[in-house]
Amino acid sequence: MAFQGVKGTRDFYPDVMRLRNWISDAWRRVSLRNGFEEYDSPIFEYLDLFTAKSGQEIAEQLFSLTDRGGRNLAIRPEITPALARMVNARINALPRPIKWFSVPRLCRAENPQKGRLREFFQWNIDIIGSDDVLADAECVFVAVDFLREVGLSPTEVQVRIGSRPLTVAALRGCGVGDDAIDKALAVLDKRAKISDQEFLDAARKIGMDDAQVQAIMRFQDCAGVAELRRAVAGAEGAGEACDKLERLMACLQAMGAGDYCTLDLRVVRGLAYYTGVVYEVFDTGQDLRAIAGGGRYDNLLAVLGGPQVGATGFGMGDVVLGILLEERGKLPETLKAASLDVFVIDDRPELAELVFQTVGALRRAGRAADFSYKRQNVGKQLKEANKRGARQAVIIKSADLVALKDLATGEQAEMSMTEFQEKYCSLVPKP
Amino acid sequence: MAFQGVKGTRDFYPDVMRLRNWISDAWRRVSLRNGFEEYDSPIFEYLDLFTAKSGQEIAEQLFSLTDRGGRNLAIRPEITPALARMVNARINALPRPIKWFSVPRLCRAENPQKGRLREFFQWNIDIIGSDDVLADAECVFVAVDFLREVGLSPTEVQVRIGSRPLTVAALRGCGVGDDAIDKALAVLDKRAKISDQEFLDAARKIGMDDAQVQAIMRFQDCAGVAELRRAVAGAEGAGEACDKLERLMACLQAMGAGDYCTLDLRVVRGLAYYTGVVYEVFDTGQDLRAIAGGGRYDNLLAVLGGPQVGATGFGMGDVVLGILLEERGKLPETLKAASLDVFVIDDRPELAELVFQTVGALRRAGRAADFSYKRQNVGKQLKEANKRGARQAVIIKSADLVALKDLATGEQAEMSMTEFQEKYCSLVPKP
Repeated sequence: MAFQGVKGTRDFYPDVMRLRNWISDAWRRVSLRNGFEEYDSPIFEYLDLFTAKSGQEIAEQLFSLTDRGGRNLAIRPEITPALARMVNARINALPRPIKWFSVPRLCRAENPQKGRLREFFQWNIDIIGSDDVLADAECVFVAVDFLREVGLSPTEVQVRIGSRPLTVAALRGCGVGDDAIDKALAVLDKRAKISDQEFLDAARKIGMDDAQVQAIMRFQDCAGVAELRRAVAGAEGAGEACDKLERLMACLQAMGAGDYCTLDLRVVRGLAYYTGVVYEVFDTGQDLRAIAGGGRYDNLLAVLGGPQVGATGFGMGDVVLGILLEERGKLPETLKAASLDVFVIDDRPELAELVFQTVGALRRAGRAADFSYKRQNVGKQLKEANKRGARQAVIIKSADLVALKDLATGEQAEMSMTEFQEKYCSLVPKP
Repeated sequence: MAFQGVKGTRDFYPDVMRLRNWISDAWRRVSLRNGFEEYDSPIFEYLDLFTAKSGQEIAEQLFSLTDRGGRNLAIRPEITPALARMVNARINALPRPIKWFSVPRLCRAENPQKGRLREFFQWNIDIIGSDDVLADAECVFVAVDFLREVGLSPTEVQVRIGSRPLTVAALRGCGVGDDAIDKALAVLDKRAKISDQEFLDAARKIGMDDAQVQAIMRFQDCAGVAELRRAVAGAEGAGEACDKLERLMACLQAMGAGDYCTLDLRVVRGLAYYTGVVYEVFDTGQDLRAIAGGGRYDNLLAVLGGPQVGATGFGMGDVVLGILLEERGKLPETLKAASLDVFVIDDRPELAELVFQTVGALRRAGRAADFSYKRQNVGKQLKEANKRGARQAVIIKSADLVALKDLATGEQAEMSMTEFQEKYCSLVPKP
């Protein structure tokens, strides 16, 4: 009768939890310093909310449940629909731009594989209420600010930036009809993951001829805005889309994130709902799935019953990111073990009550303090102190005398209990 | 087509999220300084795990779902079963005592009412691998350490402490048979919530006579260990249970938590699985449900397929606690609004690029910085800075000159851009 966790979920033992917290603390720190406020939604919603955004197909990828009244609910597979629901409910009261972030726990009923689990955490950064490409630039900057924060350099990761309207203009420019645009976008989105021949076959299947495929590949391979302008010259909407891309790259350059960003029109993104700039973060080795992805989605609030309001943002999951940070050796040594400020030891069992008093006083003063439940000799208690990662041990010799030992250097100094309490048991300021 | 959240769940808009984070940050801070390590489990488990602990009845109170293979899963209503599962899986590798904490999101399919929601957060403190009542004392101390941390005084909250073995000994002592003990415990657990007459009726219904009821009420009303010893003199196991209660109270006194703790044998706790000391935290006004509850549960690991190992701990939910903190005015002013370190302003629109540069540099240096998306006059930008809760505004006058304005005092000082960058854009040490 040994119970097991569900396949594709993780048990967060303390060592795994320290890593999860290290990542989510960095997500929060970077979000706050970029002027974003944290929000969260319930773990489940009425199923309708998800199908309204993504179509009935999504239901199969969800963990569904029913409440007592028989209503269909689902565990959230992403937080964006709830974000739109929450913003729509207070659209007139919230000052714009709305800059919000979240670190939701999400679940998808899919088969687990490397980098994809059934339960994961995803950082979400969104700006609602601005049509300005400056808002897109801010989101990309936040992603870069985080990558730099955790020690990933521009030679290790890059944000690859495309544009939906520009890609649509290019498709129209080479004669792809309106009815085939969505299908063509889906084929283009797969290009990086398949061979040129497979790409050609997929494009033919949706009715594109070889000349069109060659033209769109040339467009996707353009390296800069100037080159893009020439490739799409005259196509409807292309000029404005190029202007926006140019301003985006200039803003990123000015903010100091230019070295992490590459224009790359091969980035299209899978979801139908993007309406502007789109981007994905990749490791430059391209061994892994995308680390993050996002873009502008100006229609979502209206689709979910709200007004037409500009919106842009990205999501970054913890699974692929965790693999990359581990592989690149970016995780600090301090994650390996727990630590304590002080371990309190009695010189002999009769002093146990003084240990309780001292531990209580240290903790109330804000210091991480612990002690052994076993009344053993000092050597054994010191061993336990070391195992627990304590920086200092205080050995109580009598009601009046303590010895303070630095467990890294081994240095030891005696002082009176009064002096010790004054120095170590007075209140540490709260964070 | 306005979408709504599910009844009994909460939307965490930024103001509500700040409160949630304030509480959970304090839970984490207090846990860590008491030597506990954080863990977490998946949001759902195989249904069996919950029914193995709590019986088939529990299934009705859960949100159930199935995976693609048709297996029955449920969203966790508590984390203790998963804790036992995780510890059992590594029981030989984990050094004891295992001192772990968690702040899980939990769901129960019940009708929402004041203090009870379908989705909530619950702080869990557990010590596994120690039979010593010192471990129980530590858990109670941690609860008290938190109550003090958030500003609740002993006149506002009290931990009421009972003992399952002592109550059982008292029931046996006044002639209640073994087969009626569990039913009697359930009746005793309700005593505080019902009238004396209702209590008497309930006790009669399970076969207790009036003399037994009077005896057990006298026992429950004892105020100290000495009085308890007299009340249960001679009952099997009573002496040992009294010794443990006495040692528990002495440890709590020594650690400096005595003023928050009251011996109260009316506390029995509802769940069948407790085996030792039990306790509940109440507001002294007793207007609310229990703020926290816990005790020793030495059989759970064995019930879930592991060895017989001592275990003790408590849970504290965020809902009742939040109501109490709000009612008693314990929430700090700073929770009311978001804040920023610096808001960056241009003296005229041509300087916008310098704003982007400065904002980027401030954020990379670890400061919370933001700016207006609208290129308006300085007065309007200052208004936005105030609305955003910025402490300082930096007004860029030219590429070489900035004015730094303290938004609380209104004081303003000019300095060169170089000086500003040296002072404010050098790296702030990471926490």
